[in-house]
Amino acid sequence: MNILIKNATLLSMGDKEEPVENVEVAIEKDKIKYIGEVPEDFYAEKVIDARESLVMPGLIDGHTHIAMSLFRNYADDLPLMEWLKTRIWPLEEKLTAQDVYWGSMLGVAELIRSGVTCFSDMYFFMEETAKAVEEAGIRAVLARGLVGGDNDDGRRFEETRKLYKSWHNGAGGRIKVMVGPHAPYTCSPGYLRKVVELARELNVGIHIHIAESADEVEESLKNYGKSPVRHIYDLGLFDIPTVAAHCVHLSDEDIEILAENKVSVVNNPTSNLKLASGFAPVEKMIKKGINVALGTDGPSSNNNLNMFEEINLAAIINKSVNHDATSIPAITAIKMATVNGAKALGLEKEIASIEVGKKADLIIIDTQKPHFYPRHNIISAVAYSAQASDVKTVIVDGKIVMEDYEIKTIDTERIMFETEKAAKDLMRR
Amino acid sequence: MNILIKNATLLSMGDKEEPVENVEVAIEKDKIKYIGEVPEDFYAEKVIDARESLVMPGLIDGHTHIAMSLFRNYADDLPLMEWLKTRIWPLEEKLTAQDVYWGSMLGVAELIRSGVTCFSDMYFFMEETAKAVEEAGIRAVLARGLVGGDNDDGRRFEETRKLYKSWHNGAGGRIKVMVGPHAPYTCSPGYLRKVVELARELNVGIHIHIAESADEVEESLKNYGKSPVRHIYDLGLFDIPTVAAHCVHLSDEDIEILAENKVSVVNNPTSNLKLASGFAPVEKMIKKGINVALGTDGPSSNNNLNMFEEINLAAIINKSVNHDATSIPAITAIKMATVNGAKALGLEKEIASIEVGKKADLIIIDTQKPHFYPRHNIISAVAYSAQASDVKTVIVDGKIVMEDYEIKTIDTERIMFETEKAAKDLMRR
Ligand SMILES: [Zn+2]
Ligand SMILES: [Zn+2]
Repeated sequence: MNILIKNATLLSMGDKEEPVENVEVAIEKDKIKYIGEVPEDFYAEKVIDARESLVMPGLIDGHTHIAMSLFRNYADDLPLMEWLKTRIWPLEEKLTAQDVYWGSMLGVAELIRSGVTCFSDMYFFMEETAKAVEEAGIRAVLARGLVGGDNDDGRRFEETRKLYKSWHNGAGGRIKVMVGPHAPYTCSPGYLRKVVELARELNVGIHIHIAESADEVEESLKNYGKSPVRHIYDLGLFDIPTVAAHCVHLSDEDIEILAENKVSVVNNPTSNLKLASGFAPVEKMIKKGINVALGTDGPSSNNNLNMFEEINLAAIINKSVNHDATSIPAITAIKMATVNGAKALGLEKEIASIEVGKKADLIIIDTQKPHFYPRHNIISAVAYSAQASDVKTVIVDGKIVMEDYEIKTIDTERIMFETEKAAKDLMRR
Repeated sequence: MNILIKNATLLSMGDKEEPVENVEVAIEKDKIKYIGEVPEDFYAEKVIDARESLVMPGLIDGHTHIAMSLFRNYADDLPLMEWLKTRIWPLEEKLTAQDVYWGSMLGVAELIRSGVTCFSDMYFFMEETAKAVEEAGIRAVLARGLVGGDNDDGRRFEETRKLYKSWHNGAGGRIKVMVGPHAPYTCSPGYLRKVVELARELNVGIHIHIAESADEVEESLKNYGKSPVRHIYDLGLFDIPTVAAHCVHLSDEDIEILAENKVSVVNNPTSNLKLASGFAPVEKMIKKGINVALGTDGPSSNNNLNMFEEINLAAIINKSVNHDATSIPAITAIKMATVNGAKALGLEKEIASIEVGKKADLIIIDTQKPHFYPRHNIISAVAYSAQASDVKTVIVDGKIVMEDYEIKTIDTERIMFETEKAAKDLMRR
């Protein structure tokens, strides 16, 4: 379907940083065809009047585990290890494929409502998440979470190969698959070496958690005599394009290694704060040239999938951490949630900016609300004033997945009903 | 008008901490008349079905300057003093009474939409803010901001007396007036002594900024040989019931002084983070018995009036600051935004919990949205998952000021138009 968006204020996140007023954006099939001057003979089946609205690229949630929405608000205000060991892991043991399906459906519904058009996920029963992605019309990079020792039977590797065969470039090209070793503390060195081989075999990137907590670093120093980053580097993992979630506790050498190896980092401010993990050195990493994206982490440690909150946090927290009110300005935080996310996922040529020839993954924000007035600076407004609920319309791959606050592709009411049922059943099991 | 709320999940913030399901709340005139069992002969002109909703006390914004909404997104990502001196103060010089009126109207519209039923404000042209409060039907504690030296002509004192005469207990009792010395660094010692006399004369509390930045503490040590808290204490200010905004940089002695003198502190996490002021010792203050409330500060350093964001921040930031995931649990953050706020303002017997005999200041949150599923824990959901935009209906003093997301008392569209015009005119002036 061809779509014409009229009267838009456009924050393209392309070459020009400044928003442009009163422009038209024409979408032909899955791509942006024209911006600004649209020929009169462009035929649009659908015309959207974006008056008093902001059109910007869809947000990219660089790191999450959306099926964990089933555990949302189930266990909070607990220390990390107690939370994992006594609450989360016992429940995860009992999860069925169907649970993951409904948890994923709830997650994609929330992501779409929050203006996220692409997310990167690591979990299990990933075919179920893939199905949710296909149905909802969102874009995703999926990794089967891998944990194992040197003598592992390779079951999860097989599942990754299967996921790759079934879903890589699936859902009309909206799904990519990555290899997802969970973390250096849940994967043995021998296992991680095999992970590298697998990534090479499938010719895909790696998605991993690194240096989330001070304890992890301490344990790594004790077990391997080096930091998690150095440990992983020495195992050859960074020869593969890698997305590293968290990276909260880094030495200067770690930062050098990440920069030199072009590792992308995904910062997850809410999750890090809530689990008392600490403050990632975002400004330092960016200054060293590291590509830093932004993520929500799973909805059980957040407890939502609200990238506008993460943008706001990235922009305000680093100011106090660095004693500098100019640290991570609004536009930088927005880049983290758009172009930097795309770069981390290897999708920078396709998505994350509104430019002719790119995929039409964009959102329309309704700015006709008190908190958007007066209209001094729309970039500041996105980072400091906006709420996820201001997202009115969402287009992914040229298709309208939400219009006037209503998701068109999936049945939100049914999803809420089914996830409530799934969660209740899970607690009883 | 008598109102009956049916089928509610109630988070009363009264004696019982746990939410109760499927209850009725009856409002007679301005007060809560029954909770739970409502006699059959209770006549309600209005019945609200609160199925799939949460009924809780309205939030209290303990510290703000709502008319500064005119400067929202006007100057960000700047150091505090540059922001104040080159951007904010030159504009404030030019502000007219009418500007403050429209800025206040924009502010109250945003507060109501965000579930705030009472706020505490310090600014100038406060009669205009009072008018906005009266029209909108919200509750407020207002203080004319006072700055001056030992030889001050007392003009602002006169304005405070006038404000007190015109508006204390005004708007049907919804407005209270306080005395508002801006800060120890903008008021000389002699001036502050006169402030104490004025508060005694009017028999009202004091609202002041204290220890917002490290610079302020350093300057105080240089000028007076003591911290701002100690300095103010020595001047006798704490003999008056005092609300101290910020209190970011405190020594152990400062905390002792605040605790012993029953000073209430208002924590403003977003503003402190954004202006790079730092992290207030919230947990330490609470442990020492200080009443810590929560505020947004002005919308030009925030850049919204979203108390749900402040609750979320208070609950997550202190965990990382204290390296303890159990620090400031959800319920504590919600208390900061309700009962503690009321206590700070001397209104704890009237508002901030839903109990028989108290004022009917309450909000209804629509929980029929993906981010509220599954329904594991409603207290966690309020602190960690909710958005301000989930507030559907707002009742203040027994009157419905917002219903089904629509403000009933004031014209939101006109307010946006007028503030845009006022801001544009102001820039040109
Ligand atoms: Zn994670
Ligand atoms: Zn203030």
